[in-house]
Amino acid sequence: MNKFKALKEIITSAEISFLMEGHNAISARIAQESGFRAIWASGLTISASMGVSDRNEVSWTQVLEVVECMADSIDVPVLMDGDTGFGNFNNVSRLVKKMCQKGIAGVCLEDKLFPKLNSFLGEEQTLIDMQEFCGKIKAAKDSQTDDDFIVVARTEALVSGKDMTEALRRSEAYHKAGADAILIHSKQQTGDEVIQFAREWARRSPVCVVPTTYYKTPVEEYERNGITGVIWANHSMRASVTALKKITQRIMMERSVMSIEDEISSVKDIFQLTNEYQVQEAEGIYLGLREKAI
Amino acid sequence: MNKFKALKEIITSAEISFLMEGHNAISARIAQESGFRAIWASGLTISASMGVSDRNEVSWTQVLEVVECMADSIDVPVLMDGDTGFGNFNNVSRLVKKMCQKGIAGVCLEDKLFPKLNSFLGEEQTLIDMQEFCGKIKAAKDSQTDDDFIVVARTEALVSGKDMTEALRRSEAYHKAGADAILIHSKQQTGDEVIQFAREWARRSPVCVVPTTYYKTPVEEYERNGITGVIWANHSMRASVTALKKITQRIMMERSVMSIEDEISSVKDIFQLTNEYQVQEAEGIYLGLREKAI
Amino acid sequence: MNKFKALKEIITSAEISFLMEGHNAISARIAQESGFRAIWASGLTISASMGVSDRNEVSWTQVLEVVECMADSIDVPVLMDGDTGFGNFNNVSRLVKKMCQKGIAGVCLEDKLFPKLNSFLGEEQTLIDMQEFCGKIKAAKDSQTDDDFIVVARTEALVSGKDMTEALRRSEAYHKAGADAILIHSKQQTGDEVIQFAREWARRSPVCVVPTTYYKTPVEEYERNGITGVIWANHSMRASVTALKKITQRIMMERSVMSIEDEISSVKDIFQLTNEYQVQEAEGIYLGLREKAI
Amino acid sequence: MNKFKALKEIITSAEISFLMEGHNAISARIAQESGFRAIWASGLTISASMGVSDRNEVSWTQVLEVVECMADSIDVPVLMDGDTGFGNFNNVSRLVKKMCQKGIAGVCLEDKLFPKLNSFLGEEQTLIDMQEFCGKIKAAKDSQTDDDFIVVARTEALVSGKDMTEALRRSEAYHKAGADAILIHSKQQTGDEVIQFAREWARRSPVCVVPTTYYKTPVEEYERNGITGVIWANHSMRASVTALKKITQRIMMERSVMSIEDEISSVKDIFQLTNEYQVQEAEGIYLGLREKAI
Repeated sequence: MNKFKALKEIITSAEISFLMEGHNAISARIAQESGFRAIWASGLTISASMGVSDRNEVSWTQVLEVVECMADSIDVPVLMDGDTGFGNFNNVSRLVKKMCQKGIAGVCLEDKLFPKLNSFLGEEQTLIDMQEFCGKIKAAKDSQTDDDFIVVARTEALVSGKDMTEALRRSEAYHKAGADAILIHSKQQTGDEVIQFAREWARRSPVCVVPTTYYKTPVEEYERNGITGVIWANHSMRASVTALKKITQRIMMERSVMSIEDEISSVKDIFQLTNEYQVQEAEGIYLGLREKAI
Repeated sequence: MNKFKALKEIITSAEISFLMEGHNAISARIAQESGFRAIWASGLTISASMGVSDRNEVSWTQVLEVVECMADSIDVPVLMDGDTGFGNFNNVSRLVKKMCQKGIAGVCLEDKLFPKLNSFLGEEQTLIDMQEFCGKIKAAKDSQTDDDFIVVARTEALVSGKDMTEALRRSEAYHKAGADAILIHSKQQTGDEVIQFAREWARRSPVCVVPTTYYKTPVEEYERNGITGVIWANHSMRASVTALKKITQRIMMERSVMSIEDEISSVKDIFQLTNEYQVQEAEGIYLGLREKAI
Repeated sequence: MNKFKALKEIITSAEISFLMEGHNAISARIAQESGFRAIWASGLTISASMGVSDRNEVSWTQVLEVVECMADSIDVPVLMDGDTGFGNFNNVSRLVKKMCQKGIAGVCLEDKLFPKLNSFLGEEQTLIDMQEFCGKIKAAKDSQTDDDFIVVARTEALVSGKDMTEALRRSEAYHKAGADAILIHSKQQTGDEVIQFAREWARRSPVCVVPTTYYKTPVEEYERNGITGVIWANHSMRASVTALKKITQRIMMERSVMSIEDEISSVKDIFQLTNEYQVQEAEGIYLGLREKAI
Repeated sequence: MNKFKALKEIITSAEISFLMEGHNAISARIAQESGFRAIWASGLTISASMGVSDRNEVSWTQVLEVVECMADSIDVPVLMDGDTGFGNFNNVSRLVKKMCQKGIAGVCLEDKLFPKLNSFLGEEQTLIDMQEFCGKIKAAKDSQTDDDFIVVARTEALVSGKDMTEALRRSEAYHKAGADAILIHSKQQTGDEVIQFAREWARRSPVCVVPTTYYKTPVEEYERNGITGVIWANHSMRASVTALKKITQRIMMERSVMSIEDEISSVKDIFQLTNEYQVQEAEGIYLGLREKAI
């Protein structure tokens, strides 16, 4: 099955699915090898890997290049965190065309303003005009060059201090504008809010959640209430940061890598994750011709 | 001190120094926070993070963009693995000019052919003509726009089956061509070979080593014999791969992130590593103007 | 003189200066060879050369890569059309740091919203909040790493239907926020509007104009009234388009290049514009070493 | 018809076809509007537009980004000058996969060494080992993800001082390795050499020529002798350079654009070439939603 069909099936399935965060090709590949059937290309962690805050400091083409490497390296599909679409409907349109070219199977767009602002300066994040966001969704759907490309509409209504009614009203508008699924975002410590949303939404379309703060809620509760997409949105990066801190501190102190050699992957593991051995085989085929001629 | 001066001081110091591998901005930043005074931007691990083998599959500008992000994110200098220079003297010249622009403090060039070939098809790797490599070193030194930019000449003589005499003969030629330091590469299980080289070299210029296979040799032996640069060339990536495998497998099996929450860095840790809080402060300054006006 | 100093001198001089549009390295180089002392890197024409409309369809890093090539290819400074700064104060800050690294001597920022909107949907273009734009200027000035970097504040007040009072009020605010010069934009058929502005501005700071629609006004009128920067903002691209249309149509019809051979530059002209002969000389130096060794 | 099929039909047709050089999106677009059914993305002129010599100074990904913009902007197919393939069989493989993704319909590969060397240092250019080049062609064909992707094998045998026998021997090998067409290169002042080649080749496969030096030979001679592809390889750039020189010199001298206004394209012409009016229409659709809501 191609990646577009695969993601569509995952997102629209009645059964729960899990998307694992990746921030570069190797983390995406490892997530695939661990069994994940789809990867979440996170704006936060891609930005972080490039050393900058999650405020659209890197350009959309820089993000896209990273996600292209990810998509090229794996067989499972990628759902890309498209933030606000990096501008207006026209930027969204261009983004989606480029994504389809590169085999990136779906995008998630959120109803905030570009560039992202931190909530530091006030309690409530400004949301984009609802109809303008509907225009973005429509532009995305009209621009996709693969029929199975997925557009997930993420509403930040609850996160920005609006009530459940507003979250539902916006979701309904996004759904009608063509969104293939709704991502309901929440920064509560429990999943109650997103579960309440899902109940009221009543499976009108697929619902995704991002249990970063409300990580304690068992997924069975999501399943029961019609939440079918669960995104582990930053855990690969966070695991990597922990490991990097520990190991570099130890190497610094011990002035040696001797004691850590057995705790870390081998160079061969890296070769295996990057198709080194397939290229060696290819050398036999394509350079072997040369050898025989000599 | 600026980064060029800092790297020069580290590489030319009579005392031993350690360079920690980084493959993106965040790994470089963590290595800096762990106390490393210089970062090794590894061709192998940057390629791996982009999902491809270490055979110049990514273009030199793609590598440079990653290293630019690394350099932008840290205060300590970066020594960039420049492979063979990505072509001939002219490509080296362009590379060095671009590196100086971007504040990347030094490059390591190796005496193999572009693109790198794996040793699969024969026992001995082909080295580049010695005089042509001297031309590359000379071109690099003539192209640097900062006086303190460092060119490290890495000889693969021993790795490719040549003897110690050839390694010394080449190193002498590279030294005379202007190399600021020699990196003597070895794939033995012990440091004996590089130590023998260092003894015969007799501190004519700084010597660097990459103890990946011969990790058991204590650094004191290097110090005693005039090896002043030790590069831990891929250990950050290997630590990260291990962590990614473990965590993604657990999340996959447990269908939950609950049990790993306390084992991994927090989202706040990522914010701290990416200057999120400095940008928030800047918002107060540059957007505060707006607030006051309202 | 370095490029930053050179641009500062040009922009702040009491005498009139002319900046010629370039959209890639070769057009910038030709403008330099024709005697221009500074180049205008136009957002419109760089976008056009990449096949897209002037609405921030290409990312800021894509634009910057083009301008980097321009700056690398010439000795005279480049003033870059930075549009709205590609986001908020934080994006401006990053842009300016990157520009300084790459030796791009100045930026022009305009007081519209990102991404640019066409006036199709209404008579009046929306301007950005004045204080927020002051924050951008301040961020730009605070981020420059070369003391002589130039920030030109372009007000679209007149173009968007505001009156002269508003244009002057905004210019005064931008001046106080640190702008090194004001660009007063006008879409009238004569220069009366910009000249009136300049008279009322009374040389408080340098004033630049873009005589695209009001091309008939003699520059002496600008000189008399304190306008010291004149930007020919798109004429290289327009000349190129005309030539491309004519020649490709003729080749298509004639099924031959015979009749045009004498009307177009030679391949040697292209070599001359791209340092081909310098690289040949360098081959003698850096590869000659190899020859001698054989 | 899709672009891959279109190029295949053009290249394999028994009738003569003409490919016009483009070096960026707008020159490609103009060539299309003048009636050309295929575009030649020239390594020489793309390099020149970026300010560097034709020696692989720009990376292959930088070239590819330019060609991607070209392909995105036109409906007719692009044949890309792939130089030597930017490395070995493995680099060729990656290049072809990326080209197919981006809708670039064919590549031309030449049998020289990377990076290109100028003939300054000796009479004869070194050709790549014939079998190794066959490996590259085979790798290209095995890597294409669209069945109709075209690989043109360009032999530099005659240009590098080899005789007709060698040119034919190599072409036969490349043909057997899978090349869809042969490009026979010549630097003579007449077409005699390429015509002699074509006669002896006897339509075993399509033959392309590049009449830059032998521009006087009428195309009828090619048609008669089985040469079916004619590439006008640099004439757009050369026309553009001439126009840029003339216009910038005049503007410099006249301190005015008044006298040239009628000789150059209008800003509206540029809008037309960059889909400005289509985007305006799209604004009506996707932003109109917003208007209605207000």
